[in-house]
Amino acid sequence: MHPLIETFSKIEVFKKLKISQIERLVKNREIIFRRYERGELIKGRGEKINEVMVLMSGKVRGEMNDFNGKNLVVEEIKAPNFLAVNISFSREAILPVDIISEERCEVAYLKKEKIFELASENIDFLKALVEFLGSKFYFISQKLWFITLNSLKEKILIYLASKYSGGEIVVLDKSIEQLSQLFGSTRPALSRAFSSLESEGIIRKEGNKIYILDKDVIDFYV
Amino acid sequence: MHPLIETFSKIEVFKKLKISQIERLVKNREIIFRRYERGELIKGRGEKINEVMVLMSGKVRGEMNDFNGKNLVVEEIKAPNFLAVNISFSREAILPVDIISEERCEVAYLKKEKIFELASENIDFLKALVEFLGSKFYFISQKLWFITLNSLKEKILIYLASKYSGGEIVVLDKSIEQLSQLFGSTRPALSRAFSSLESEGIIRKEGNKIYILDKDVIDFYV
Repeated sequence: MHPLIETFSKIEVFKKLKISQIERLVKNREIIFRRYERGELIKGRGEKINEVMVLMSGKVRGEMNDFNGKNLVVEEIKAPNFLAVNISFSREAILPVDIISEERCEVAYLKKEKIFELASENIDFLKALVEFLGSKFYFISQKLWFITLNSLKEKILIYLASKYSGGEIVVLDKSIEQLSQLFGSTRPALSRAFSSLESEGIIRKEGNKIYILDKDVIDFYV
Repeated sequence: MHPLIETFSKIEVFKKLKISQIERLVKNREIIFRRYERGELIKGRGEKINEVMVLMSGKVRGEMNDFNGKNLVVEEIKAPNFLAVNISFSREAILPVDIISEERCEVAYLKKEKIFELASENIDFLKALVEFLGSKFYFISQKLWFITLNSLKEKILIYLASKYSGGEIVVLDKSIEQLSQLFGSTRPALSRAFSSLESEGIIRKEGNKIYILDKDVIDFYV
């Protein structure tokens, strides 16, 4: 199988298409590919998105900035996956985040009309597309809940609970800097929240290792 | 025209259907209607949504609560409109908010399969549905940006800027209590932020009237 076709067929929604349909898209040049270097701005907040974007290789992050330059990493996306697909279908189609490449990557651009055509010919593709759009909405709703409604200490506990699989230790896969961006806080505030959880005897932090001292508290947030 | 059909045809997405298609849905009892009293919980956070819901009459709010009982009103929805339609199409279909009636209202329930059937028969309906799903995502992304990335004073200024149409005065259409729920803050914290903007000479607040003293600041946030 052509490697491009293999990549597409790994995405939940495109799985519902026949290989021959994807082959036709590629052959008829209905997909345009573009490469980006590490750290490049692929699309900026406020830009109009005219096409459906698929991340074919590499990794990107979507981040928001406020008036003071504080930023929030809304999502990290690994290939193969859609990029901002809900937004490309929205009425205004204005991107609410900066999309920045975290390593070299390649993005495929498809016309929206083509996607509608495929969906109206194939009800399984239509269902998978609508389900994908709905699930992304669920993801961002949860993000809104997580970011808005919890103190920094609660955010840490919810995060630890999500990584917790019993045992004594949770190993953090992100730095304090990266976590503070995920939590929409600053680095010093997050460090203080960790210290506070330590002094309450709930955890002990040694580098990226978090020793769970009070399992009941973690269980509460699982 | 039957009043039910008239109500449906006022919703952007259903406008794309033929009157006869909506009539058939109603005649074949493929729509179930339920009434709710003021203050009733229509669906609760964590509930599974098996059908597509349309608010036929009345007004509801969607709100989230955290572990400490603080709540955030994510959206107020007036009839006729979809309710949580993205969520009903998402993989898990678990509602992230409580949906509470703000006055007597009526909700129509339709099978998801029926919606897919209509979409695959009618590409304009399909496009309108996908555009609606995308636009709701855009709305909640903006909400996330607004809630996360701004101080309370900035939230007030952005809110005032959104209501500002030149002149001296912006009349608040919400109480401080309601605004604090929209902003994900507490009532006292919001009052302090208003006082702080007054002492900086940016606004003067008299009841629900806000006198704009420094238009440049407001213009910055428009």
